[in-house]
Formats: sequence, structure tokens, C-alpha cells
Amino acid sequence: MKITIVGGTGYTGGELLRILTNHPEVDEIEVTSRKKAGADVSEVHPNIDPGLKFTKLDTKKASKSDFVFCCMPHTEAMNTVPKIKTKVIDLSADFRLKNPNAYEKYYNVKHTCPTLLKRSVYGLTELHRREIKNATIVANPGCFPTGAILACHPLVKEFDVDKLVIDSKTGVSGAGATPKEETHFPTVNENVVPYKVVEHQHIPEMEQELNVKVHFTPHLVPLTRGILTTVHAFVEADEKEIFREYEKAYKKEPFLRVQKTVPSLLAVRGSNKCVIGGFNAKDGRLVLFSAIDNLVKGASGQAVQNMNVMAGLDETSGLKDIGLNP
Amino acid sequence: MKITIVGGTGYTGGELLRILTNHPEVDEIEVTSRKKAGADVSEVHPNIDPGLKFTKLDTKKASKSDFVFCCMPHTEAMNTVPKIKTKVIDLSADFRLKNPNAYEKYYNVKHTCPTLLKRSVYGLTELHRREIKNATIVANPGCFPTGAILACHPLVKEFDVDKLVIDSKTGVSGAGATPKEETHFPTVNENVVPYKVVEHQHIPEMEQELNVKVHFTPHLVPLTRGILTTVHAFVEADEKEIFREYEKAYKKEPFLRVQKTVPSLLAVRGSNKCVIGGFNAKDGRLVLFSAIDNLVKGASGQAVQNMNVMAGLDETSGLKDIGLNP
Amino acid sequence: MKITIVGGTGYTGGELLRILTNHPEVDEIEVTSRKKAGADVSEVHPNIDPGLKFTKLDTKKASKSDFVFCCMPHTEAMNTVPKIKTKVIDLSADFRLKNPNAYEKYYNVKHTCPTLLKRSVYGLTELHRREIKNATIVANPGCFPTGAILACHPLVKEFDVDKLVIDSKTGVSGAGATPKEETHFPTVNENVVPYKVVEHQHIPEMEQELNVKVHFTPHLVPLTRGILTTVHAFVEADEKEIFREYEKAYKKEPFLRVQKTVPSLLAVRGSNKCVIGGFNAKDGRLVLFSAIDNLVKGASGQAVQNMNVMAGLDETSGLKDIGLNP
Amino acid sequence: MKITIVGGTGYTGGELLRILTNHPEVDEIEVTSRKKAGADVSEVHPNIDPGLKFTKLDTKKASKSDFVFCCMPHTEAMNTVPKIKTKVIDLSADFRLKNPNAYEKYYNVKHTCPTLLKRSVYGLTELHRREIKNATIVANPGCFPTGAILACHPLVKEFDVDKLVIDSKTGVSGAGATPKEETHFPTVNENVVPYKVVEHQHIPEMEQELNVKVHFTPHLVPLTRGILTTVHAFVEADEKEIFREYEKAYKKEPFLRVQKTVPSLLAVRGSNKCVIGGFNAKDGRLVLFSAIDNLVKGASGQAVQNMNVMAGLDETSGLKDIGLNP
Repeated sequence: MKITIVGGTGYTGGELLRILTNHPEVDEIEVTSRKKAGADVSEVHPNIDPGLKFTKLDTKKASKSDFVFCCMPHTEAMNTVPKIKTKVIDLSADFRLKNPNAYEKYYNVKHTCPTLLKRSVYGLTELHRREIKNATIVANPGCFPTGAILACHPLVKEFDVDKLVIDSKTGVSGAGATPKEETHFPTVNENVVPYKVVEHQHIPEMEQELNVKVHFTPHLVPLTRGILTTVHAFVEADEKEIFREYEKAYKKEPFLRVQKTVPSLLAVRGSNKCVIGGFNAKDGRLVLFSAIDNLVKGASGQAVQNMNVMAGLDETSGLKDIGLNP
Repeated sequence: MKITIVGGTGYTGGELLRILTNHPEVDEIEVTSRKKAGADVSEVHPNIDPGLKFTKLDTKKASKSDFVFCCMPHTEAMNTVPKIKTKVIDLSADFRLKNPNAYEKYYNVKHTCPTLLKRSVYGLTELHRREIKNATIVANPGCFPTGAILACHPLVKEFDVDKLVIDSKTGVSGAGATPKEETHFPTVNENVVPYKVVEHQHIPEMEQELNVKVHFTPHLVPLTRGILTTVHAFVEADEKEIFREYEKAYKKEPFLRVQKTVPSLLAVRGSNKCVIGGFNAKDGRLVLFSAIDNLVKGASGQAVQNMNVMAGLDETSGLKDIGLNP
Repeated sequence: MKITIVGGTGYTGGELLRILTNHPEVDEIEVTSRKKAGADVSEVHPNIDPGLKFTKLDTKKASKSDFVFCCMPHTEAMNTVPKIKTKVIDLSADFRLKNPNAYEKYYNVKHTCPTLLKRSVYGLTELHRREIKNATIVANPGCFPTGAILACHPLVKEFDVDKLVIDSKTGVSGAGATPKEETHFPTVNENVVPYKVVEHQHIPEMEQELNVKVHFTPHLVPLTRGILTTVHAFVEADEKEIFREYEKAYKKEPFLRVQKTVPSLLAVRGSNKCVIGGFNAKDGRLVLFSAIDNLVKGASGQAVQNMNVMAGLDETSGLKDIGLNP
Repeated sequence: MKITIVGGTGYTGGELLRILTNHPEVDEIEVTSRKKAGADVSEVHPNIDPGLKFTKLDTKKASKSDFVFCCMPHTEAMNTVPKIKTKVIDLSADFRLKNPNAYEKYYNVKHTCPTLLKRSVYGLTELHRREIKNATIVANPGCFPTGAILACHPLVKEFDVDKLVIDSKTGVSGAGATPKEETHFPTVNENVVPYKVVEHQHIPEMEQELNVKVHFTPHLVPLTRGILTTVHAFVEADEKEIFREYEKAYKKEPFLRVQKTVPSLLAVRGSNKCVIGGFNAKDGRLVLFSAIDNLVKGASGQAVQNMNVMAGLDETSGLKDIGLNP
């Protein structure tokens, strides 16, 4: 297969390169960049061997690829995706929210192609595998929603839950590759920084998929990769019963592990796994946790998982890497 | 004044030395250790200049000090404190819980001196200043309760709150100076570890002081000092009204800062400050945060603050250090 | 092929499992442990899916494997390796030093099987590929020597160098999985710790392979994986000439990259690569650097590379993982 | 005394505020900023209590202060300092190099006031105390030179040393408060980055004060504060003899500690101390180390130490803080 990565200088682009270079069904990769066209990819991504160059995006040429991964910024992707006439997996937020008003509210711009939005599929593979298989545009989920929705879906489906308190702790790679004051090493190190409290743009994604009120608070913690999500729910059921439902719901999932103990980011770093565990209920409240690598299952790994589904391949193809521990 | 620190090889003992060495009213410090008696203190605490030696505890001699700070492990302190016949500030958990049954439940031993327990005062200075002034034994609060109670007290006092979801992120120094598997660098680094979920021994301290159900979850994060506490409450009131109550409640407190923005651990590292901020209310739920240095306001700094109150000194004496930023 | 890993609870054992589980020619893996026999491997290595159990070492059974990887502690391996009657790759130091006196001096015990020692091959693949191919026992190099020897070999071979000053900075995983005071998070974090100054046991390995006086100083830095080695040499040659020699020497090596810019640990994390770069000469002194992942090229990855050579496989088989960046 | 800090939004400005706020002889502090004039200082430095505002620099008004600390960027300070008619402690590099050609070579601009340069004094207090006492302009040393010169001065003075290999590891706060690609958290974390190899602008400072060839290589390590400097020297003398000379040279110095063991950054964080230790000689080569907090002894603390000398105060006034350990 031939792949084009549009906007490949960021972390999700780099991660796609890392994964797709070793994918057994991928024969050719083109990677574009507005600013770095002509430069060797290894100048930006030192883990990639020298030899591959960034090119300028040519949407006609890209349309001849089997798949285009679009890694453009939010609000820009929706202007480029319509020009690409092949299967697209979009890693921006532009095609995730089915309700264009919610999109406008959280991203401060009007959606420019609501028709395409309607045809796109929300790419949380475990929930929408069937639609993804036949989709032309897959909207790859946000990093926080991936960990949160997988952690909560069996709970809200099988039990009576009216609201969720979700408290996530994310590594700094989630903020992207562009240096900012908030990601300056001395600002992040030895610190824990809550941000966009009560108003993070990932809340409507979670509520869309879970159909329940979500009270979400993200925190930046001093590490590079990983999201540990803590879910607090007020629910009448004991932890064993809930655990059994999770086991049942996820037993065939190749990338999900359900366990009684709390999950560790050391189990998922660099891999497409999501570990869900820690089921503790007491005094009418349940706590459980999920762990993902925000750049893999929370972004580029899940994107490749979606590509595998769309191409009719084994879903784990190219995604068998085991996490780095320690 | 003459001071004795009992059990001075751990982090709270070291921190007392750091603070008391520069305290203007302290003339003499003796520091004891069972294992290290005879050794130079600088071998254990490299920040302390060579010259001072650890001694063996002699309770008679210690009783001649003006103050004894007891830094022994939980469940051991209650066997030593009764032998000391002077004012004691105990940094263990042994005299914190007014209900001996709660103590037994969480620490798995029967309390050996319930009479003394009754006479001891819970040393959260801002809440119990008057009783501390006349106390003989002050039970210095736990690190999590300090940050959590200060963050929640005006809320539960002035508003109708039936339960609190408290999600704390702590630096590793809170786990003490003894190496364990959980504090091994490669285990902690690039990880976020929830622990003692739903059953942490600091829960009854919080409930005792706040008189409300507390759903508490601590997480270990890869940093050395600091606790960032996230409080989620379901309350009918707007954030401005709540903010005003906090300002009113704490306006005279020398170590508390109330602010609209989220607090930063960089504002408190190495200092006795507690910063409370981030007041965000939406959809019937309030989020707010507190930041402390777990070894200072969460342990040794507050202990010195209590000593100042007991000695009739200016409460900030010896505690004027400004936090290290960055 | 059938593989046995002896002593698989440490970091090198875990890393062998991570790599060999996905190795295309490996059909079966057995992993032994004295202390954890019977336990599920995932309890110790959370990145490995549940299902595999540690067993007790049975040297007869192990001898039926195609390869045994021995991950026992130094000075213990030499008592077990002789009992194994198949090809062995030993990750301890016991078969690395050709001179038994040097071994005794640095490890404080007499070597118990000097005959076997004579027949073993030092497993720095790039230097000893031909002997490794036919070896029965391969002594896998130490982590520091791997980075240092690869960084210096073309230099000492082609130029007149009488001594090297080698200053290495290592992640904490190099100290192993057992918690110690030196690896306690608050001791390592925000610190840089030189250790075993002038007397580290890896010095004789470097001198054996480079035939030159090595002045080596290791430093522990607050990160998990990676060794950055800084080489200072006093040599009469310009950096371009030296660079050309390195390119020539290493141009066919699948795991070595030679570059003009300084190497980054972000290029090698989790991969078997060694990047050498930074060639700067001035005032008669040359500085250059190498970067490796101490657990992969510095231990388990190189061990698998040696297995591939011994088995006549493609040397990169199972080792195609690209490093994690960031 | 009245103090003006010119350019107070960076880390050295913040650190001066932290120290001078508690200095017993300082009555009034004014702090200027071009960009932030009018803003509350606590917005930039969260550790400083709200209340103080940044002002615009008025050189006439500043000239009425007892001391002006100039925290402007290199090459800008030399245009402002001449306008200030009071005692100035300049934290830039502009008045450090006695040779204007060396300045031009390393900073790429011609020095604009060579006359003032001649009258300024290099402010490494321990070496130039007498001249500092009477100086009008003190050029506060660079962070690397402070640690390196203090580590090497007795060695080059008392022994025959023709060149030094100095390998330093610095925390990221040394790179300043402005976010850059090199200080982006995911770039620094889990990495060790050598930079300006063989050509760092601090080399001529070291050579000026030590009168010996210095081969210097700085490395960025993932921590916030601290410089650990490793010195390699080829010298004919044993470590005991060298150690005695250091003890003799520094025995009266209030901020220097000489010890046999390796120094730790945990001994100096947040304090004005420099610890020198680790004296190991073998095979004609000596290794020793120094540890400082780059923002305190390496910048603002030493600046205040110089102010104390210039004002005839106790040199430790306002600088008694003990380092944070851990």
C-alpha cells in the first residue's frame, strides 16, 4: 500500500512514520510539510534514519495513495480533507463532533463542510469497527477521549450512571512539538498543572460517545508519554460485578487489557495497548483507571488500527510492539 | 530555646533541621537516631554542614528541651511520646485521630495511650490555633489532609456539600527516605501511580476535620516535593460567591494565598505556603485546587508554625523562606 | 527456535522477553526465576501480557533450548553457565575479561572456570562477528563498554591516541531493578551523581578491546534509559579526516549511525541503534559522543543481535524497532 | 538600602527578588521590565506574593538606588550600564572578559565601552574580594565558570597543570525563561544534550581566571537547577596532598565546602553553597567535582554576596538559606 502523511513534522506525524515504516503491508510512504519541504525527515525526527525527505502537499498526488493520514492543526484540516480523493484518517478534531454547534462552541469557528462531517465516522475502533470498515473519512479520536471512553463505556452501558468525574494526568507530548511557555522544561518539571478546567475541548467527544454528563479535568504532569485517567462514578453495584462486565465487553479486543490491579503507564509506553484496572467500589462510589500512550493508542497507533480495519487487514498488523518497561 | 528532634534521619527530620538551624529563637538543636547515633548529620542530610552528630534518645534529657519534635514512624511514636515531659509536636499519625477505633482500623494496632490522645490537639494551625497555643501535645497533620482540609474548609463550612471527591498528586518525598520498589526511580519516572485507592489512612483525618464524606484518591507523580490537590464538589453556588468566602476566611492567614488562577507547585516549593485557587464552577460542580510542599506546610514547616504558636512567637518566625521558582 | 531466559525478573530479562516475543524465528520462550517461579510474568513485567509463568531453572531442560540467555548476577553466572549444554549468551560480566586476574581484581572473586573463559567470545557484534558466529559462549558486553568502544574503535585503530578521557551519563535502569538508596527517586531526581570514579568495573573491558589507557567516569542522571558517552581525546588530526574514517569503518553496520551533529538519546530509546556523532576537534583535542539505549544495544538487544549471528539469521531479525521519539 | 533590579522577568531577576525580599539590610526593591511594566510581579514569578509591580526603567531614578542589579541580555547590558550612576552588579557577560577581542570573538559584537570594562571587576567573590569591595561595576561570573573556577583554582595555583578537561552537566534553568526548541520538555526529558561543544562562550572566562588551557563541554540534563562539574586533570601529585591544599585554600570561605566524597546537587539547591569533592587520582590523572545551584551561587546569590562585600556587610547576610534536600 502507498501512504501519504500530511503535515508530518509534529509528534503524531513522527509516530506514524515510526509505526508505518515497519508495517508489513506498507510499501511506500510520502510525508509532507509546509515549512520543512525538502529537508531530511531525520532532522526533525532523529529516530528515523536519514534518507526520506519532506515534500510539499500535492492533493492530486496524495489522492493516489491508498490512505492519507492528515496531521494538520484543528480548524485547518477541514479545509484540506475535502480535496483529498481517497480514504482519509484525520487526526485533527475537525470531524469528531457530530454536532456542528458543539464544534463551533469549542473550536471558535464555523464548520466549513458539514456534509462531509455527517459522512465521517468517529474512529474509536473498539466502538465503531463496523462503520469504520466502510468509511471514507475516519475522525481519529482525541487522546483524552480514547482513554476515558474505553474506561467508561461498559460502565455507562450496563449500569445506571448519571454523571462521571474524570481526572486525567497527561504527559507533555500531548501538547505537541511546538515550544510554549507551558511546556518549557522548568515550568513543567517538579510541577502538576491543571488546565482548561471545566472547558476542555475533549469534553463534548466524551459526552457524545458516552451519553452521560462528564466532569473532566486534565492535568499536565512531568513526563513525556502517557495518560493515566482516573474515573470517579457514583453507582450502585459492587466492583466484582462491574469487573465481570468489563471482562465480558472487552474479552476479544486485541489492544485492551482488563485487570483488577491499577494499570501502569509502563505497560503501554510505545504500544497501542489500553489497560483498564483498579476497580474499587466503596460507599456508593467506584474508582477505576485507564492507561494509554497518548501518541500511540491516543493518536497514531489508533490511526493505523483504523487503517487496518478499513483495508481489511489483521487489526494488529504493524502494531505488535510491546510497551517499554521501564 | 532548646529543641530535640527525635528520629532525625528521615525527610521530616532533615527538613526540621533545615528550618530550625536558621530560626531566630532557636539556640540549640539535638537530633537523635537509633541507627545513626554517633554519625555526622551531613552524612545523611548533605545540605547540612558537617559538625552536628546524631545522638541516642535519652527521654530525660529530651524532656529538658523547650520542644521535642517526634519524627518516629506511625505506631511507634505513641510508645515514646508519653515518656517525654515537655511540649511535644508529633509528626506521626498517632495522635491525630480523636476516635481510637478509626486509628485501629487504619493503622491495624490498638492505640496504647487513649488518655493522652484525648488531650492532644490536631495541629492544623489555621483551624485550631487557640487550642494549639495551650497544648502539650500537638499532632501535626498528614501531608494530604493539610492540602485537602485547607482547600475545602470554607466550602463545607459555608455551603451545603454532602460529599467531596478529592484527587491528589504527590511528589515521591512523601513516601519517605527508605527505598522501596514503589519509589525506585525507573518505577516512578514516566509514570503516574494511584495507590491505596479508597482506603488511604489520611481519609479519616479529612473526615474528622471537614465533617463530610470524603472520596479520596492519591497518585504518585514523578517529582520530589509538592502535593497538588484537585477537589470536585457538587454544590449550588457560583464561583464568585465561593471565592469571596475563601478570601474572607483566609485573609489574615500569613501562609495562605487565595487566587482565581490555578495554583502552582513552583509557588510553594521549599516554603510553608499553601496556595488555593482555580475556582471553576459549571453544571452544578465546582473544581478547585491547593498546592503545598508536602515536607514544609505538609510536615516540618507546619510543625514549626505550631511551635511558634505554642511559644507565643510571631507565627512566621523562621518560616519566611520564599518558594523556589523554578 | 526455543529459547530459555535464566533469571528473567530483572530489566535485561524483561527486555529479552519484549524483543523475543515478536522475533519471527522464535517459537517458544521459557523464563526462569529463583524467587518468582510459579508467578505470572506480567506481575513483574507489566508490559508483557498475562499468561506466561516463571519456572524454576532445570539445566537439563534448558540445555534442550536452541539458545540460553543467562541474566544472572555477576559472579553467579560462572557457576551456572558450565552446566548448560547448548549455546549460551551470558549477560553477566563473568566471561568478558580474557585476563582472569583483571576479573579477580574488579569483581573480588577468583574465576571458577578459566577454561570456559578462554573459549568464550566477547560479544560486541561489530568487532567480533566472525568469532561470535562459531561461539558456544558469548559474553555480552557491559552497557558502558558498548557505547564507549563503538565510539572509540575507529579512532584508536586509525590514529595515534595514547589515552582517552571517557565521561558517561547513564539512565537509572542501568543500576538494575532492585531498589537501593542510590536509586531512590528523591535521591536521583534533580541530581547528577558520579560514582565508582576511577575504579568502575567496566574500565578493563574498554581497555581490553581498545588497547589504550582509558580514564572513565560514569554519572547517574535522572532518566530511565540511555547512555550518552562523551569522549575526549588528544589527537593530531582534523575532524573531517576522523569523520571519514568512522563513515568508512561503520558504513555496512545495520545498527550504527555516524553523523556530524551530536547524537540524541531520543534517536535510540527502545531500539538497538548506536548513534555516533559530534566530531569536534580544536586545539589538539577531539570530542565525540555516542548514544545508546543501555537496555537494548547495551544489553538485551545486542544479545539478540548475537543470537541472530550465531543462528545464521539476518542480524536485524526481531530488532527492527525504531526508537521512541519523544 | 534601596535596590533596583533592571530586567526582572527572567530567572536571575526572580531569584534576586526571592533573596533580597528577606535580606535584613534591604528596605526597598524596585524591579523593571520593558515588556511587563505595570504587571504584578506574581504573574511572572508565582513564588512572590502579589503586590509588587514591574516598572519601566528610569536610569535617573535607578541611579538613586544604593545598588542596581542589571539582568539584561548579553550585548544589551553594555549600553545601559554606563547610564547608571551608582554601584552596579551586572549579571550579563558584558563586563567579564578583560580582553575586548575575546569578547568580540565569542559574542559577535564589538564592545561599546572598553573604558568601563577596564574599571569593572570580575565578581568571583572568593578570588577578587578586595577589588570587589571598592568596585563601581562588578561583572557577576557565568554559571559554568563559577563552578569550574572554584573547582580548579587551588589546583592550577599550587600544582603543575597544563590543561584541564572540564565536562559540566547543567539543569535547564541555565538556558533562561524563554521557551525554545532545546528547552521544550519532551526534548529535554529522558535525554542528555551536549551543546556548543568546543566553543562555549564561558571558556574564555575560565581561561582568564585560571591561566591554563581549558577544554570545556557543557551538557543539558533533565533537571531544573544545578551544575555538576567534572574536572579531569593530568597532574603529578597524590589526592591527599591535593585535598590538603584545597582545605587550606578554602577553609575560611563561608560558602565553600571541601569534602572527600563526591558532592551532591541536593546539598546546594536553593543555597549559595559550592561543594567541591571527590578527589580521585589514579594513573597520573585526577578527577574532582563541584556542585552549585546555577541560579544562586552561579548567578543571583553570588550577586548578592558581591553586594554584601561592596556594602561592607557580613558576606552571608541574606544568604543563609540551607539547600533543599531532597
